[in-house]
Amino acid sequence: MNESMLSWVKNIRLSPPSLANNTADVDRLVDALKAELQTDHIRVDHDLMQAVPSLIRQCRYHLRCILFEDAGQWLLVGLADGAGDRGVAGVAIDLGTSRVVLRLVDLADGTILDETVFDNPQAEVGPDVLTRTHYADSAEKLTHLQHLIVDAVNEHTELLCRQCNLRPTDVYLLSVAGNTVMTHLFMGLDPRFIIREPYIPVVNRPGVQRAADMGIHADAGARIFIFPNIGSYFGGDLIAGVLSSGLHKQKETSILVDVGTNAEVVVGNRDWLMACAGAAGPALEGGVSRMGMMAGPGVIERVHIDVDTGKWDLKTIDDAPPVGICGSGMIDLAAQLFLAGMLDIRGKLVASACAGRLEKENGLHRLVVIPASASATGEALTISQADIDSLIRSKAAMYTILETITSHVGMGFNDLHTFFIAGTFGSFIDPVSAIAIGMIPDLPLSTYRSLGNSSLEGATMALLSRNVPAEIDRIRNRITYMELNVNQDFMNRFSAARFLPHTDRLLFPSVKILQKG
Amino acid sequence: MNESMLSWVKNIRLSPPSLANNTADVDRLVDALKAELQTDHIRVDHDLMQAVPSLIRQCRYHLRCILFEDAGQWLLVGLADGAGDRGVAGVAIDLGTSRVVLRLVDLADGTILDETVFDNPQAEVGPDVLTRTHYADSAEKLTHLQHLIVDAVNEHTELLCRQCNLRPTDVYLLSVAGNTVMTHLFMGLDPRFIIREPYIPVVNRPGVQRAADMGIHADAGARIFIFPNIGSYFGGDLIAGVLSSGLHKQKETSILVDVGTNAEVVVGNRDWLMACAGAAGPALEGGVSRMGMMAGPGVIERVHIDVDTGKWDLKTIDDAPPVGICGSGMIDLAAQLFLAGMLDIRGKLVASACAGRLEKENGLHRLVVIPASASATGEALTISQADIDSLIRSKAAMYTILETITSHVGMGFNDLHTFFIAGTFGSFIDPVSAIAIGMIPDLPLSTYRSLGNSSLEGATMALLSRNVPAEIDRIRNRITYMELNVNQDFMNRFSAARFLPHTDRLLFPSVKILQKG
Repeated sequence: MNESMLSWVKNIRLSPPSLANNTADVDRLVDALKAELQTDHIRVDHDLMQAVPSLIRQCRYHLRCILFEDAGQWLLVGLADGAGDRGVAGVAIDLGTSRVVLRLVDLADGTILDETVFDNPQAEVGPDVLTRTHYADSAEKLTHLQHLIVDAVNEHTELLCRQCNLRPTDVYLLSVAGNTVMTHLFMGLDPRFIIREPYIPVVNRPGVQRAADMGIHADAGARIFIFPNIGSYFGGDLIAGVLSSGLHKQKETSILVDVGTNAEVVVGNRDWLMACAGAAGPALEGGVSRMGMMAGPGVIERVHIDVDTGKWDLKTIDDAPPVGICGSGMIDLAAQLFLAGMLDIRGKLVASACAGRLEKENGLHRLVVIPASASATGEALTISQADIDSLIRSKAAMYTILETITSHVGMGFNDLHTFFIAGTFGSFIDPVSAIAIGMIPDLPLSTYRSLGNSSLEGATMALLSRNVPAEIDRIRNRITYMELNVNQDFMNRFSAARFLPHTDRLLFPSVKILQKG
Repeated sequence: MNESMLSWVKNIRLSPPSLANNTADVDRLVDALKAELQTDHIRVDHDLMQAVPSLIRQCRYHLRCILFEDAGQWLLVGLADGAGDRGVAGVAIDLGTSRVVLRLVDLADGTILDETVFDNPQAEVGPDVLTRTHYADSAEKLTHLQHLIVDAVNEHTELLCRQCNLRPTDVYLLSVAGNTVMTHLFMGLDPRFIIREPYIPVVNRPGVQRAADMGIHADAGARIFIFPNIGSYFGGDLIAGVLSSGLHKQKETSILVDVGTNAEVVVGNRDWLMACAGAAGPALEGGVSRMGMMAGPGVIERVHIDVDTGKWDLKTIDDAPPVGICGSGMIDLAAQLFLAGMLDIRGKLVASACAGRLEKENGLHRLVVIPASASATGEALTISQADIDSLIRSKAAMYTILETITSHVGMGFNDLHTFFIAGTFGSFIDPVSAIAIGMIPDLPLSTYRSLGNSSLEGATMALLSRNVPAEIDRIRNRITYMELNVNQDFMNRFSAARFLPHTDRLLFPSVKILQKG
């Protein structure tokens, strides 16, 4: 089996012991690895030492060594037969608040073997980090939350392995990237001080731990790399995102936005990185996401309204009968309503333009997106003026945050080389629609780059290259975290951004061209 | 409580978290320790991280941190209240084949709190390393041997702690120095290849391990430092001995001899160290020790025979009625018999001079040391010609080894600055007697320095000074191990040394003066 240059797996052939060279078994192996890796420090766990003598003789001194690096020290994590054909696997985990993605990789050659997605079972306790943090007010309840997620990871790892003809004991390395609270709950660390002033996590640099210490079923010596956080509001998933974007290695300044339940932003280049998170200001949280639903069959993901004919064209996932609308569909819808003149510049439904689609309930306007007759649920799918107001607050917050951090580093949007959109949700947003409502700046479309699940990508990278832990450290140490002050300046910007697309129409020339006269 | 400059215990006062400094709890602690220890790399285990938030608040940010160093990395082993009065303890273990000594120390100020000695319970399987190694031919039997010693260590640690008002969970660091096989059995490492050509230990540099991994009951995060070995015949007990002697730091060349069941020798200075072990030649093993018994009440430890009057003067331990003779008493006895003319230069009992003390059984001479009437056992305490022959072979082997290694480094005995005698047994030897029989060279008495239980001393040093692990590494790496070739040269030397004190009487001028005319 091929091994990539920077793989954590090293193929080693030892010279068998002799009277002329009677170095001890473990020392012989460690010396060979020290020479190979050019390091002075390699640590071997006690149980691995116990296995070494029979293993190296059984494998005729030809071994695959699985290593990892931790705080200035190399760890010999595990050993496999150098001539054998058993896989040497790793598991990358994108630990989302709502959804968890597991990816099984071949540590030697970097092949992605399989992937699986499941809902974070902690949702049974609460849907968001705040509810779960409040729930975890005793050691038992904290353990309960930890077991929920770890058991699910074990179960899905086993399934993934089985599908690939592997056993969980063939898993030697894991990596996990999640937000700060999710990381705490995964490790069984008390999150209570994260949500109380002065907002103190237990740890932001958890480093490398024994997987078994966290209850993970894998090889006995398996290690788990836990992505560092910057603070309470800027988690390891973001660091993984920056890693996967490569923003931190480019000469030109770029921006990365994670549009999830929070708006988290990083601006920078190979010399500096500045970050902020939307939870400090009016957030997208409860905005884009509340009225929407998770992507799934029948969920409306694209909306087009012909400006001339007024004809609606809706696209659902898998072309199934419509059941609801997801966040990206909602942005599309708002943009199309605005361009069709059905929303005014303040984001209010224009009664005359909406005509037959408008209903009134308890004195509030609702727009029928799908009539009951065409809906899969048998009820009309509608959005209310309140839903639209909420979306507009969210998009305004997003734009304000982008404007604030960009101007904070003395730049304008036009100075940005690339605008990375990270996160699964973000990857479905159509930049044209997001620009139309003034959620993101009106930059050339080629500027925008969707990263997909950048947290999972980053977590995978940590399993496949020896250079990555140091790179992650560099990213973490170089990021300056900017607290978002909701001051007068911020509020002025926010007020201007609450219009569609903005009070200053000159900022959105492309929208002006599209809009109906 | 005072803390010595180089203690593994660090008193740390953290500034409490604030909005202006919202560093995570563990990171705050790690950063403070990094500054204090001037290191970049500090590792914290997962379970300690779990305990940190409540602990640091409970202790009002004033902590005693117990640390250790391992392969280029500092470990935060445990935490205690900085203002509390609970001890922070360590256990040093001299892991002998026959006897084990445990010493409880205060890690902060270096006070020796208590000590205990017990027989190595592995003796129930076999008295020596060879029997035990042969016994350990299956995983179950190896585990049995490991449990025997680890259970005993746990039991005695608990006793020591109780006597000092401590709990085993107050023990954060342990160190163990033993010979190569004892170290293997303690760690549950298969010793089978140590005794088979080409004589390969599992590991010679076991480093620092989690105590819990070895079944040791102590603080959950407690670490055990296991002294490195040089090879199958030169164990960690000897490295501990060199460490405690300070030989490796002196400008002048000195020699260190461990007179135990083996004769192990190190010659050197701050620039170089040369070692050899007697098991490679005719050893003292089964010689000095077989006919003797362990020190204890009633054991004869000193013998004096008045050359003029022929009167015997025996000293027993605790002045109890005599029950036997220990190794050092045996050397005294042989020396006195020789000086009194009762042994001739070949080491044979001189019938005429022994007069009434000589008995004959099965055609062999036996000398009555204590008649039945005066013995505590009710039987006469005797030594046979065979016992004496065995002692002489042993002393000749010892002298030959000393001569061989000294001449190998191009020196004579007179070039040696200090002659360290290590080991509990060695510490009871009277140099005057050992010189009289030609076991050790005839150097000025001021040259000889008894180190006592140098293995225990060395093990203690590892618990009390941060400089020691690096010093141990240096000793280990600097030692050149010389295989003793039993060649013609060696045999010639050995033959000459089989006389009392030696064929070349000029080598022993002081003996010539004492001897009866």
